[in-house]
Amino acid sequence: MERIEQYNTHGGTQGVYRHDSKTTGTAMTFSVFIPGHEDGAQLPVIWYLSGLTCTHSNVTEKGEFRAACAEHGVIFIAPDTSPRGEDVADDEAYDFGKGAGFYVDATQDPWAKNFRMKSYIETELPTLTAKQFPMADMKRQGITGHSMGGHGALTIGLRNPERFRSVSAFSPIVSPLNCPWGEKALGAYLGEDRSAWRAHDACALIADGHRVDQLLVDQGAADKFLTDQLKPDLLEKACADVGIALTLNMREGYDHSYYFVSTFLADHIAWHAARLK
Amino acid sequence: MERIEQYNTHGGTQGVYRHDSKTTGTAMTFSVFIPGHEDGAQLPVIWYLSGLTCTHSNVTEKGEFRAACAEHGVIFIAPDTSPRGEDVADDEAYDFGKGAGFYVDATQDPWAKNFRMKSYIETELPTLTAKQFPMADMKRQGITGHSMGGHGALTIGLRNPERFRSVSAFSPIVSPLNCPWGEKALGAYLGEDRSAWRAHDACALIADGHRVDQLLVDQGAADKFLTDQLKPDLLEKACADVGIALTLNMREGYDHSYYFVSTFLADHIAWHAARLK
Repeated sequence: MERIEQYNTHGGTQGVYRHDSKTTGTAMTFSVFIPGHEDGAQLPVIWYLSGLTCTHSNVTEKGEFRAACAEHGVIFIAPDTSPRGEDVADDEAYDFGKGAGFYVDATQDPWAKNFRMKSYIETELPTLTAKQFPMADMKRQGITGHSMGGHGALTIGLRNPERFRSVSAFSPIVSPLNCPWGEKALGAYLGEDRSAWRAHDACALIADGHRVDQLLVDQGAADKFLTDQLKPDLLEKACADVGIALTLNMREGYDHSYYFVSTFLADHIAWHAARLK
Repeated sequence: MERIEQYNTHGGTQGVYRHDSKTTGTAMTFSVFIPGHEDGAQLPVIWYLSGLTCTHSNVTEKGEFRAACAEHGVIFIAPDTSPRGEDVADDEAYDFGKGAGFYVDATQDPWAKNFRMKSYIETELPTLTAKQFPMADMKRQGITGHSMGGHGALTIGLRNPERFRSVSAFSPIVSPLNCPWGEKALGAYLGEDRSAWRAHDACALIADGHRVDQLLVDQGAADKFLTDQLKPDLLEKACADVGIALTLNMREGYDHSYYFVSTFLADHIAWHAARLK
């Protein structure tokens, strides 16, 4: 692992790292904010998964999370959203291929070779993190994300409740089975058998018996993707059906941008921190 | 004036505006954050002048100022750093021409035609702001900025103490007369007669009798431009010589980037807000 950037900021350090991933077969880049702390301290970790078109840098530059992470003493890790590189398969569309890994392990060609973001986020990167950042307390992890990354946070959180004590999301794609972004991406990455998609659909995971105690979701009411792609009502119904305590904050006038995420990310960090004490 | 972007954020609105400037003879773009407020409220205004290579967007995206502006109920205005456009004179270097207006009215060709950032910031844009944003209380203005914009904030503040109740800066160029950036830019914009530069040099303005009661400056101790370009010791001496109360916070380990500015900008906003009550 190579550190390619490091800045003192908000009393801690913002780093950007690159490593050769065995999972994706490519170099992968991610960012880590480590708040100021005493020697030997063990700090909880919040994972932030980004949305379509993003790299680690969008939230790192625009997320306004560091003051809250410093206040609560939590590490913040922002991975990339797909493999990258000239040899990696891609598509002209913004919602597919590079920048759009959807946090699945693709089974279909030409995607299966590199698009293995599920294993990368669930297995390889946490192992690397535990090894490289000894102050990261891997027994206290939370996960959140935005849009496609909200989908990633919800599905990874639901599949791994023993690992993630707290799960939240911003404007998540709550059901790829029921929206154009999801149908396009999962159809191409996982094939036409929609039963294989259910492990990558928060609503289907809940219907199939996966559980967390609580979920926190913030959603802009003026988000242009609300009705066709995001559909928080499907998550509300899925949670109500089985008794998961979902807090769904509909934010009047807010859109899908980082002007929305940055407004409420500090609230989410406080919420996670309270559950990671 | 045309609004080209608007976002709900931090309980207020972040707008970006474009207008045809009579001063520069070009279209000019600037951003304004207006916190949530009651109808008819009058809110103080903080001007933020940006540094070399920047537009309004750097601080707007990376500055992390909105939470503090919302808390204190202040408007935050971020202008561009130079005229722009295909017909505007430019230079290949990053520290001269477009993105490097140095907040002066150029007297030398080819710059004199468009590079009139002093008059733009001091006269045209405040007049436009007062007209277009009726909630802006132009009797309560503060000014700050970063690097070249810190130079702009200090010099404009010192020349207009009746207008700006509070003046602060991040990593300012405190004496263009005594650094390569300043010598290059002011020499080209204002000509070789260095006496004409004194109105655009914070230390010279102080020596020549201009006064403010207090100044707040934050400076990264690991800033690579500290010794050759920024030289805060010159400002310390100028203030000590005449009894201006300068608070100079040297920040160990911090560099020249927005990771530094964003760490301390909320502190500056609180400092300005206390003086703009």
